[in-house]
Amino acid sequence: MQDLSGGYPGGHPRSPGTVGELGEFGLIRELTSRLTTTPAVRIGPGDDAAVIAAPDRRIVASTDILLEGRHFRRDWSTAYDVGRKAAAQNCADIAAMGAVPTALLLGLVVPAELPANWPTELMDGIRDEAQVASAAVVGGDVARGDTITVSITALGDMRNQDPVTRAGARPGDTVAVTGWLGWSAAGHAVLSRGFRSPRAFVEAHRRPEPPYHAGPAAAALGATAMTDVSDGLIADLGHIAESSKVRIDVRSGALDVPAQMSDIGQAVGVDPLHWVLTGGEDHAIVATFPPQQKLPARWRKIGEVLAPSALPQVTVDGAPWDKAGGWDHFGDQDED
Amino acid sequence: MQDLSGGYPGGHPRSPGTVGELGEFGLIRELTSRLTTTPAVRIGPGDDAAVIAAPDRRIVASTDILLEGRHFRRDWSTAYDVGRKAAAQNCADIAAMGAVPTALLLGLVVPAELPANWPTELMDGIRDEAQVASAAVVGGDVARGDTITVSITALGDMRNQDPVTRAGARPGDTVAVTGWLGWSAAGHAVLSRGFRSPRAFVEAHRRPEPPYHAGPAAAALGATAMTDVSDGLIADLGHIAESSKVRIDVRSGALDVPAQMSDIGQAVGVDPLHWVLTGGEDHAIVATFPPQQKLPARWRKIGEVLAPSALPQVTVDGAPWDKAGGWDHFGDQDED
Repeated sequence: MQDLSGGYPGGHPRSPGTVGELGEFGLIRELTSRLTTTPAVRIGPGDDAAVIAAPDRRIVASTDILLEGRHFRRDWSTAYDVGRKAAAQNCADIAAMGAVPTALLLGLVVPAELPANWPTELMDGIRDEAQVASAAVVGGDVARGDTITVSITALGDMRNQDPVTRAGARPGDTVAVTGWLGWSAAGHAVLSRGFRSPRAFVEAHRRPEPPYHAGPAAAALGATAMTDVSDGLIADLGHIAESSKVRIDVRSGALDVPAQMSDIGQAVGVDPLHWVLTGGEDHAIVATFPPQQKLPARWRKIGEVLAPSALPQVTVDGAPWDKAGGWDHFGDQDED
Repeated sequence: MQDLSGGYPGGHPRSPGTVGELGEFGLIRELTSRLTTTPAVRIGPGDDAAVIAAPDRRIVASTDILLEGRHFRRDWSTAYDVGRKAAAQNCADIAAMGAVPTALLLGLVVPAELPANWPTELMDGIRDEAQVASAAVVGGDVARGDTITVSITALGDMRNQDPVTRAGARPGDTVAVTGWLGWSAAGHAVLSRGFRSPRAFVEAHRRPEPPYHAGPAAAALGATAMTDVSDGLIADLGHIAESSKVRIDVRSGALDVPAQMSDIGQAVGVDPLHWVLTGGEDHAIVATFPPQQKLPARWRKIGEVLAPSALPQVTVDGAPWDKAGGWDHFGDQDED
């Protein structure tokens, strides 16, 4: 049984019994009863489709899918934390375009024998993270299946800014990052060795805190390319480098490696820089800016955009990073 | 191995090998390479999120989730047909609000050992049905898992009309339907007894043809409530009756029961009216109209909205329909 004491704020009565006992319509009722709304929600859950305000006349949309055993473990994360994390990674994609999240839709697969409080606490987590990102859950679908599957679509509004893609970085641009790097990976290393502390890193793995506001702020400042760090810094900078047809060099000395992360690295025999450079799931936001642009508060310059060369598209201190970067979710090794 | 000759139009080279051999990024490349676009798609797949035009300043959004073994069977339907059906049921939800579908996002779970042509042909089907509905696939996510899971989110534009919910039916209104009723259920009955014909019904089960254009047209004519028939006519009219706080009476004599459907009913010992009244998945559109409203072509008056009474919210010829209506997807019995 999962540890429910970790992050669940309580207050809601637990639904009794299993998902199968509740039935499809009973579960939908339980889930929708927990939702909150925003002025952007014109028609919420319960009809054929939801209707959401799109004042910009353009909508930003992204889908992510999470499976138990592959993207989360019930013995490592509470349902509430899985919900927060699932919503966070979707809202981070919206923010990384420079947009403000407005609405989430949830496709949920649950086994009939699952305790009914698991999906309801998942929904609490999704709702609360959506609120942090200024969005609301507006609809979805549930189905019975063997593996818990959480598919979220996030929608966002550009607020009259132009979207910042991965394709606009130019040689000479500054590479900068805001948010956390390597914390989730360090927490994962701790958990996978059977420990539950240091708590800050375990919490970072269970519940990322993407800097949502930084996306639209960077767009307003003229960021030329932007993405969120979901696959690892090197892999995600690789996406920018490939789309923009440039090389990106990261200065390792500019990266923040907290002392406590170094301690964990020493304890488990891993160079902590590896977590910072290749760890995904913190959903930091990395962007390129024109060289003369003063960086906003909390952004840190970590490198530079260069012309393409014979070197790999992303280098660290001018040389190839010799360890595998990023995650291929079809690889033989499960991530979590 | 599934029958691939049924509905796949061919023309695309088959991807060799399995999904696992392709890898996550290889599969995403294969899937996105097959997509087409529309002028509404400002940024398509490949970035953190897609950007789609929303000229109405409101976006309509709906999510549906389909699982192998539960909502489709690979020995009954080709991947292409599953794709058409998945896209159809989502676009029907958008049309049933009175909106025009603009974009689809796909969350796809596939086993590593699945032949790679299965997801690519699925994508062909989604793309082609999206085109029929005037939409394009703009993004998504893939993950590896044991059960094929297809989660689609459809977005649509209201085109300056007001959304038609389930809540606006008033006593005296006409109940009318357009599209097919009971065809998918009759085809399911045929397939579940091991037959492959009559072909028209089997095809209707494999690939519904929702009357997308009828949704916005009904909205323009002042439809007071509307939904698509996904759970069965009685169940879906029940949703309108409940939301609108009215009773709805269906006249069975007004329903179209084709002679060939009666023949199937006789052969398998089922009253074909049962399929027409309770069969889902054809995605007909049912709506209520003010009594004086002349019905558009291809709409058929099938009943009337009445004041609530002690009777069930939906009656047939003034009396309760005595067989179970609609499907509860958490029931013990698999639908497909």
